[in-house]
Amino acid sequence: MEGEMEEHREGRERIGNDIESMVDGRGNAMEGNFYYMAMDADAEGGIHQPLLLRRRTMNTTSQIAVVGANLCPIESLDYEIVENDLFKEDWRSRKKVQIFQYIILKWTLALLIGLATGMVGFFNNLAVENIAGFKLLLTSNLMLEHRHFQAFVAYAGCNLVLAAAAAILCAYVAPAAAGSGIPEVKAYLNGIDAHSILAPSTLFVKIFGSIFGVSAGFVMGKEGPMVHTGACIANLLGQGGSRKYHLTWTWLRYFKNDRDRRDLITCGAAAGVAAAFRAPVGGVLFALEEVASWWRSALLWRTFFTTAVVAVVLRGFIDYCRGGNCGLFGNGGLIMFDVSSGVTRYSGADLIAVIVLGVIGGVFGGLYNFLVDRIVRTYSIVNEKGALFKILLTITISLVTSCCSYGLPWLVSCTPCPTDVQDQCPTIGRSGNFKNFQCPSGHYNDLASLFLNTNDDAIRNLFSSGTDNEYYISTLLIFFASVCFLGLITYGIAVPSGLFIPVILAGASYGRIIGTLLGPLTDLNAGLFALLGAASFLGGTMRMTVSVCVILLELTNDLLMLPLVMLVLLTSKTVADCFNKGVYDQIVRMKGLPYMEAHAEPYMRHMVAGDVVSGPLITFSGVEKVGNIIHALKMTGHNGFPVIDEPPFSDAPELVGLVLRSHLIVLLEGKKFTKERKLTGVSEVLRRFGAFDFGKAGLGKGLKLEDLDILEEEMEMYVDLHPIANKSPYTVVETMSLAKAALLFREVGLRHLLVVPKTPGRPPIVGILTRHDFMPEHVLGLFPHFKPHKQAKGKN
Amino acid sequence: MEGEMEEHREGRERIGNDIESMVDGRGNAMEGNFYYMAMDADAEGGIHQPLLLRRRTMNTTSQIAVVGANLCPIESLDYEIVENDLFKEDWRSRKKVQIFQYIILKWTLALLIGLATGMVGFFNNLAVENIAGFKLLLTSNLMLEHRHFQAFVAYAGCNLVLAAAAAILCAYVAPAAAGSGIPEVKAYLNGIDAHSILAPSTLFVKIFGSIFGVSAGFVMGKEGPMVHTGACIANLLGQGGSRKYHLTWTWLRYFKNDRDRRDLITCGAAAGVAAAFRAPVGGVLFALEEVASWWRSALLWRTFFTTAVVAVVLRGFIDYCRGGNCGLFGNGGLIMFDVSSGVTRYSGADLIAVIVLGVIGGVFGGLYNFLVDRIVRTYSIVNEKGALFKILLTITISLVTSCCSYGLPWLVSCTPCPTDVQDQCPTIGRSGNFKNFQCPSGHYNDLASLFLNTNDDAIRNLFSSGTDNEYYISTLLIFFASVCFLGLITYGIAVPSGLFIPVILAGASYGRIIGTLLGPLTDLNAGLFALLGAASFLGGTMRMTVSVCVILLELTNDLLMLPLVMLVLLTSKTVADCFNKGVYDQIVRMKGLPYMEAHAEPYMRHMVAGDVVSGPLITFSGVEKVGNIIHALKMTGHNGFPVIDEPPFSDAPELVGLVLRSHLIVLLEGKKFTKERKLTGVSEVLRRFGAFDFGKAGLGKGLKLEDLDILEEEMEMYVDLHPIANKSPYTVVETMSLAKAALLFREVGLRHLLVVPKTPGRPPIVGILTRHDFMPEHVLGLFPHFKPHKQAKGKN
Repeated sequence: MEGEMEEHREGRERIGNDIESMVDGRGNAMEGNFYYMAMDADAEGGIHQPLLLRRRTMNTTSQIAVVGANLCPIESLDYEIVENDLFKEDWRSRKKVQIFQYIILKWTLALLIGLATGMVGFFNNLAVENIAGFKLLLTSNLMLEHRHFQAFVAYAGCNLVLAAAAAILCAYVAPAAAGSGIPEVKAYLNGIDAHSILAPSTLFVKIFGSIFGVSAGFVMGKEGPMVHTGACIANLLGQGGSRKYHLTWTWLRYFKNDRDRRDLITCGAAAGVAAAFRAPVGGVLFALEEVASWWRSALLWRTFFTTAVVAVVLRGFIDYCRGGNCGLFGNGGLIMFDVSSGVTRYSGADLIAVIVLGVIGGVFGGLYNFLVDRIVRTYSIVNEKGALFKILLTITISLVTSCCSYGLPWLVSCTPCPTDVQDQCPTIGRSGNFKNFQCPSGHYNDLASLFLNTNDDAIRNLFSSGTDNEYYISTLLIFFASVCFLGLITYGIAVPSGLFIPVILAGASYGRIIGTLLGPLTDLNAGLFALLGAASFLGGTMRMTVSVCVILLELTNDLLMLPLVMLVLLTSKTVADCFNKGVYDQIVRMKGLPYMEAHAEPYMRHMVAGDVVSGPLITFSGVEKVGNIIHALKMTGHNGFPVIDEPPFSDAPELVGLVLRSHLIVLLEGKKFTKERKLTGVSEVLRRFGAFDFGKAGLGKGLKLEDLDILEEEMEMYVDLHPIANKSPYTVVETMSLAKAALLFREVGLRHLLVVPKTPGRPPIVGILTRHDFMPEHVLGLFPHFKPHKQAKGKN
Repeated sequence: MEGEMEEHREGRERIGNDIESMVDGRGNAMEGNFYYMAMDADAEGGIHQPLLLRRRTMNTTSQIAVVGANLCPIESLDYEIVENDLFKEDWRSRKKVQIFQYIILKWTLALLIGLATGMVGFFNNLAVENIAGFKLLLTSNLMLEHRHFQAFVAYAGCNLVLAAAAAILCAYVAPAAAGSGIPEVKAYLNGIDAHSILAPSTLFVKIFGSIFGVSAGFVMGKEGPMVHTGACIANLLGQGGSRKYHLTWTWLRYFKNDRDRRDLITCGAAAGVAAAFRAPVGGVLFALEEVASWWRSALLWRTFFTTAVVAVVLRGFIDYCRGGNCGLFGNGGLIMFDVSSGVTRYSGADLIAVIVLGVIGGVFGGLYNFLVDRIVRTYSIVNEKGALFKILLTITISLVTSCCSYGLPWLVSCTPCPTDVQDQCPTIGRSGNFKNFQCPSGHYNDLASLFLNTNDDAIRNLFSSGTDNEYYISTLLIFFASVCFLGLITYGIAVPSGLFIPVILAGASYGRIIGTLLGPLTDLNAGLFALLGAASFLGGTMRMTVSVCVILLELTNDLLMLPLVMLVLLTSKTVADCFNKGVYDQIVRMKGLPYMEAHAEPYMRHMVAGDVVSGPLITFSGVEKVGNIIHALKMTGHNGFPVIDEPPFSDAPELVGLVLRSHLIVLLEGKKFTKERKLTGVSEVLRRFGAFDFGKAGLGKGLKLEDLDILEEEMEMYVDLHPIANKSPYTVVETMSLAKAALLFREVGLRHLLVVPKTPGRPPIVGILTRHDFMPEHVLGLFPHFKPHKQAKGKN
């Protein structure tokens, strides 16, 4: 236990360092800056200058102020704008063609994300259906010839090869692609630019690793990886391709800022859900409910467009495949589940049954989350030993899964085919509801119908209506237990693996158990109970309500069961929230990502901002010696530095603003140095730099400190920091409650918050608060005697 | 034109004053304060005190700070918390029973709101169906006897009486109940507590006015009023009943704060939509997309619960009515429309047709919004002349509507009944698709099928499939023109009137025209085109996408047409956004409500916070003379006053915090005055006041300045303001860009923002920014020479 915690702490620090090392990734948002600079450039010409600046109108109110005199040449609305600038302000001062470029590009990108994600989603399904179908067909044919051992070897061998391929890709090409990906996307949208989360290599591994992994028969889904894939595609398109792979598109410089990039990635995540479930509205709601940290009305609209495109693309491909052009791609994957409630009114007994199901889902969900947490922590010990261990672990789990899938169906006896069903019975091919397996003709093996199918087909079989007596309760119990077990041991191996499918499988099987048990008492059929069971387990683990509800609605195309699904979700979420947090929140926390919660922790109300600022504080003068800057950049990992004007530039020490590491490096690279300590002004800087040079570079791109080549004599020269300083940084007084500072930090979406002194006569700045300063570990670390009450669970 | 603008400005000022006079309504949010006080009270006992406060642990980092020494006795997280306090922090320091009370109450309230709104929604439909059904039956029977003139008199007379009743209620009881109500709810949730928007009298008039108005045959809907009704119900329940009507419930003191109240009203608005359209998910999305200004994940979940309750309640009532227990309540109102797409794939021609429909919807939508604006402005001249004029205007419109509805069907010729339809033809009763009207038996009048039905039935007829040739194009053209005309002249009269139904009617009729025209070219039927037309017009006027999409989905129960609905909505919104803003935004602006947009206006980037602060600034000393406070409260309408400590209480003038008018009044009423200028401390205040005395009172409740009874000698005494000052107010430096200050103000949800000086040596506060200071009228009024570019339209 102690060792485990130790391990965890180490893991966290490692990830922390990883993030810290991505210095340019943590820079302040720079939206708007470029347009100001462009405007000033115009000002030199004269006629395009804003009126206020030219006229220096005297204000008629009691406050005397020369409007425009305070105009900041570079100003970072820390998380906001661009759209405003381009759309409105610069309508006048910039060339119209650029604005239209921006609007057209924005929508083109949404379209492209939708198209690409839709195509990848379809390709994923096509590949899985064909690979897994071939494997199942082979096994099935060998079984028919009663070559049972060969069948097992073929089955397990295929699984092994596929699993190994997925693990090799994941271990050697992109370790960040392991797991679901939803927690990482969620963290990114919260403002955490962790290394390589959205890199092109991650995208590649996520697509192929997911195909191999799902085809390998693991109890895991493609949904989480699809969300991550969508986000990666959006990132790749948004940052104008990859410089590393020599794919760039300069037009996309408009999107070189935090906000636009976040918007795109939100669209991508929604598109991923839409592609995975073919649920466009569900995708939008998923992005809203689970993934995004900031949301705007305009985003709803653009996300919706993207998911609509995905839906249209998928529909087109499926129509094409209906003609039999897609190999083994049949009715699987992207087809909606055919669940029919059959009834239009429910009795009180039905409602009680549904509530019971919800309670069970909540308890199981809480337990599942707890176990996932433990197992992932345990696995990470193995995984950190090296790539080979990752592969070995994956192979082991694959063997266990194969043994379960192939071995357990032998335990159940054969059942004669019912005569009153429309489905074929028994089925021999790659899918179907009544698998023949080892049985004589005219009989089927009900457990094989669940195990020796793709996960999608197994879910369809569990949801199927009109087959109330197909499965024995013992069969369902075996399946439930083994799916839970396999699902738990699978998440955490080095393969892109989603959590939706195992949860739906397990939930559907216990739902069907309860449905079969209650059969005589209720009008609802067993298939509907399976659906409600799946909903309850989803609610219990993921803690999403509206989006799961809408996704299930879109998956099953039956509105009449909406109230029942709502009821079961509400119950299971309420129950599970008593135990722990949602599984994605848990993973985010386990990975040590500095996620800013929407609410400040309550003990923060007892602390003030001045208590927790990180030291030592490094500040620059308005006109600073180059050597000092280089030294500060080398010695610290800080990404923001306060700039302070001192005499002779001001009467008393005065805060100018905040400069960012990335901007400093760009400025230094321009080498506009002076021998004396003097102001150079904005126009000088503009002569050297284009409007987009200070834009936020893509992950892993942008200038590095090591790229600078400063001569020895230049180290003694001076550089004017005023033009690149953000002159309106958000500030709080040092006596501000930490909870309120956290609220400001989170709501406005800051990366740096300056703390200023309350009383005059002291240096004009006390310190800088960053995301890390609000983390419970940091805050509570400062006050070892403070023991906050065990944190209340759940989001509620 | 000039006069109109003048009129408008006056109107705005009047509303502005109205808001200003509701002083306690504009007070700062006070969440959390009570719990702090309660905690301090416990601290006197000793054992329940937070550890930090007791131990005064020395911080081990470079920043020296005694944690807890800065603990603010009353601190207002301006828009946030309570939940946190109750849930987490006070878990320890407060009695557990109170926390459970809060949780249970929160969910009970959500349940009650759902139940009440569901019942009101059903009652509304029941009443309308019965009243309008009786009227139509009477007319129909007279027509059968060929007593055409008597039929008209009966029809118009019923309409007139109902319209007059609605107008009288609205004019004399609650003028705030006129119109849709959605703009008002939207403004409330943005933080504008305008007078009587959510008062009990408004609720009463909204319910009955809407019933009478819709029954009176006006081209208007019950949807907007239902949203307002839901919000009123939520407000009434949330503020613990109405003190005026002696209905209060002290348990609900927990909800005496801005945030909880806003949450409840968001739930209420969603419940209203859910009740109006029987669309639970649509209701949640509507609240999210159109109504709410702030949104949290927890709110999604609670809103969803409320709408689920509404859905269940409605389903129960409808099941009950199916037995024929509800008079004339038939298939109308709350039943879903039966639209069947019939096709599962679309051709390119279909998509082009849909895009054309979207473009038309966008153009018409923009035009419609423009005309609504003009007509409402014109009507307001009449309406402001007095209650009698309001009633006369309503009666006039009612007569025009009756003439159109009864007169126009005479223009079209009778059509022989088709033989291949399942519906009855001709129908004679109160509803039906093939109205007999004046025709001989075996014939029907197609225009009468649309006009002489309730609006819901007319929509159902337009949406009906399998009746592609029922309506002549000329009939549909007449109907479209007259519905547009009647819809436009109806909105703005003194009756609760929604905009959804006229928009859906007009959209469905032009959709059906296009569908009929394109009949030979497309596989889609005319009913589906009518649905798409309705969607396009909704997208063009309201500019909602996802919520309209989901509402239509839930109304029609057909998922297969989702991509088409999405496409038409996207097109129409895009086109309409080129012309103007959404209709609700327009009405909010027209009413002069100081709505804080999510984006700062672009010209604000050229101004700094110090430029626009309102003067003159009134500040109080930390220990202030009672007379001065009374004088300041009497002379100004300000709701927040900075408190400044001066020697001997501090070395130099120093900002203590912000006190609110409402808190000052409560404090003065307690009469804890001292003869000398000295600090009394928190404990003294706590001896006098309970934890909830400083809670935000309901609208129109709470202490008034006139309620105070201060003696002459007390005027010369002193009172310590420290205990009630919010010691962590949000501040900006005077040189902060106004755009960034606006962002902070909006995102954090403030009501007052303190502006502090940049350079030391000046008074510690420059001024206070309130909502009004960010309004374009105010900002641009200060700089008459500044001409911002004509504002970009739309939200995008």
